[in-house]
Order: sequence, then C-alpha cells, then structure tokens
Amino acid sequence: MNEKISEAVIRRLPKYFRYLSDLDSLGVERISSSAMSKGMSLNASQIRRDLNCFGGFGQQGYGYSVKNLKNEIKKILAIDETYNVVIIGSGNIGQALANFKDFAMEGFVIKAIFDIDSNRIGKTINNIKVRNMGELEGFLKEETIKIGILATPKEVAQDVADTLVNGGVTGIWNFAPQDVKGAENIYVENVHLSDGLYVLSYYMKEKNGKKED
Amino acid sequence: MNEKISEAVIRRLPKYFRYLSDLDSLGVERISSSAMSKGMSLNASQIRRDLNCFGGFGQQGYGYSVKNLKNEIKKILAIDETYNVVIIGSGNIGQALANFKDFAMEGFVIKAIFDIDSNRIGKTINNIKVRNMGELEGFLKEETIKIGILATPKEVAQDVADTLVNGGVTGIWNFAPQDVKGAENIYVENVHLSDGLYVLSYYMKEKNGKKED
Repeated sequence: MNEKISEAVIRRLPKYFRYLSDLDSLGVERISSSAMSKGMSLNASQIRRDLNCFGGFGQQGYGYSVKNLKNEIKKILAIDETYNVVIIGSGNIGQALANFKDFAMEGFVIKAIFDIDSNRIGKTINNIKVRNMGELEGFLKEETIKIGILATPKEVAQDVADTLVNGGVTGIWNFAPQDVKGAENIYVENVHLSDGLYVLSYYMKEKNGKKED
Repeated sequence: MNEKISEAVIRRLPKYFRYLSDLDSLGVERISSSAMSKGMSLNASQIRRDLNCFGGFGQQGYGYSVKNLKNEIKKILAIDETYNVVIIGSGNIGQALANFKDFAMEGFVIKAIFDIDSNRIGKTINNIKVRNMGELEGFLKEETIKIGILATPKEVAQDVADTLVNGGVTGIWNFAPQDVKGAENIYVENVHLSDGLYVLSYYMKEKNGKKED
C-alpha cells in the first residue's frame, strides 16, 4: 500500500507523530481532523488526504484514535524497530546528537562515537565511549550497525561514508557540509541546517513585506 | 507575483540556491532543466513548475542563466539583504551554529551570543563574544537585531522568545526541543532535528524492504 507516497507526505509524518505523541501523553484518546488541523497548522483536507495514503484509520464522525494513529505512523516510519547507530565525529554537532534524549526513546541506540582527536578518544559523551577512528572498520564487523551519523569535516565525509557502507550500514544521516553518496539500497539523508535559515528569511519578508523600512 | 507560493516550493528553493551557487563557482554559465534534474534528483517538469512560480527566468532551448537564476532566488529568499543575528545558548548547538561559515557569507551576521553559564560568559566563539543573559534586553534596545536563534533548554525557550520579540526580532530560528510561538508579523521556524532521522528510517525500510532480515 505505501509504495508511491510522495516525499512531501513522508516528510510531514514525523510532525504527525510528534503531535500525536504529545496528545497521547496528555491522555487525549480521540481527535478530529479539524482539531488536528488547528493544533498542527495544516488544513483538515490535507490531513485527511495524507492519512488516506496509508489507508485512513479514521472513522466518519468519530475522528481518529490517537494511540492507534500514533502507532500506525510509528510502523510506517519504521521507528517501531530498534536500530544500532554510530556517530562519526565528536565535535559540536556530534556531541549535540549524542546527547539527544529522543533518540534512545524511539529505538535509535548509539553504540559508539568515533573521532581522530586523541584528546577526545577514550572519553564518554552521555555514557557513550569515544573510540579511535582506526577502530571503525573492525567495530562494524563485530557489531550490526544500521545507521551512521556523519558529523565530520567535509573533506573526509565521503571516505567515511564509504567505510560505513562497506561495514553494512544502510542509512546515513549526514551533517557534514558536503553531500555524500551511498550506493544501491543505501539511503542518505543529507542535512543542510542553513536551509532553515533561508526559509526563515523568506517568511520574515512575506510577513513584514513593505512595512519594514 | 510571489504571493501564493506553496511552502513545499519555498522549502525547495534553498536546494536550488545551493546547487546554482556550486555551478556558478565552477564557472558554469547556462544549465538546462534536464541537467538540473539529474544534478538535483528532482524531475525536470517539477523544476520548470517551481521556477514558473516566480515568473520563469528560462529561455526555450537555451536553458537558464546560472548567475541570473541564482541571484533571482537569492532575492526571493531575501538573502540578498543583511540580517543581524543573536544566538541564545552557547551549548553544543549554539556553538555549532556560531561556527558555521556559510552564515556570514549569506549576510547573516552574528552580533552576540548570550548564556547564563558564568564559565562561558566573557569567552568568544568564532570571535563572537558570549554575554550575560541579563544583558539581552538592553542589547536589543541598542542594536537592530532581526533574527534570534534559540539554542536554550526547552524550559526557558518561550520566555526567551518573548524577550526577543519585545526587543524587535521578527524571525526566530528555534532549536530548543519545544515549539515556541511568536506573534503577528513574527515568523518562527521550529527545528526538529530528529524528524530527519525518522525520514531516514522510512526510506531505509523502503529501500531494503523485505530483503532485510
């Protein structure tokens, strides 16, 4: 069923998931698409269309069961599974990600952090050991690691990505300021933080228009 | 002309901008939508439709002028202007953002970083002074700051956002793990880093399907 879903819909799913998780933790059991529409600032027909891509889940006049819908979206996003993760690079971004509380909660288990900096190797971040980059290949042979997070300088990003893929990683989340390529059956999510700043700039102008001097 | 452009198009514009900037720096002068399509992994008709939202810029049979198109998109995104920025919070995320090289290049000038931690106050990050949070209100009165970047714990995020808005900030880029609200004419871009991880998880499953054990 979920073969031909557009990327735009997929990229909205985490937002639904967060919203429904919040409702669930507040004890809300059912929600209408119009209430969701208000809470999420999405229009109600968009919400119905999005959720219909996955076969609905709603009942006319009764709205959606919060828990069911949350769990279905969790399944669709495949975050009902557990993934072992490594982080490459323990600079600011690597450290920030290692300290994220949400990851472990959603089944992303960070098994190790790798770095080349001898001042960092051997230390721990959020109880996760920082290991020598030279150990990465061996580590990937011993452990089943599905996701690699790249937080390296751009010069080495592609080389590290290749090592990860050769070691059995099938998903790369890349924060290096240089897009990397995977291979067939490998999915790469290249992050461009500054894109958000450009979008902010656009909407600031839209909102203030010519009133601004 | 650019009144009713969908958010999906706006969110693709930074990608066009990055792509065209790369071409431009490599000396490429003209590009066809089909070449852009390959380079950007977007389909060509999508590209033509996107760019038509802003009045075209292409010439049948000649493709697009890289420099013109880049500059037009820059104008649309309003990143041809200069913005003064403050960062609130000098933890990992705040530091990572303060060290971003792209920002200054695109006219985002970080004027100060604020923190409550006495170990950090007075230090500099990337030549930008870390100031005492208590000075924020006064600083906003003296300087014209348009953008505030929130990299605080979630508990204080909304309070700090309110202070920024009262001090004349019209755009907030929020990295705190708690959505904040602005006010009329204020645009808030709430960042949810982990959304990218969920999308990664979805596409890993899509790509590997049932072949994975």
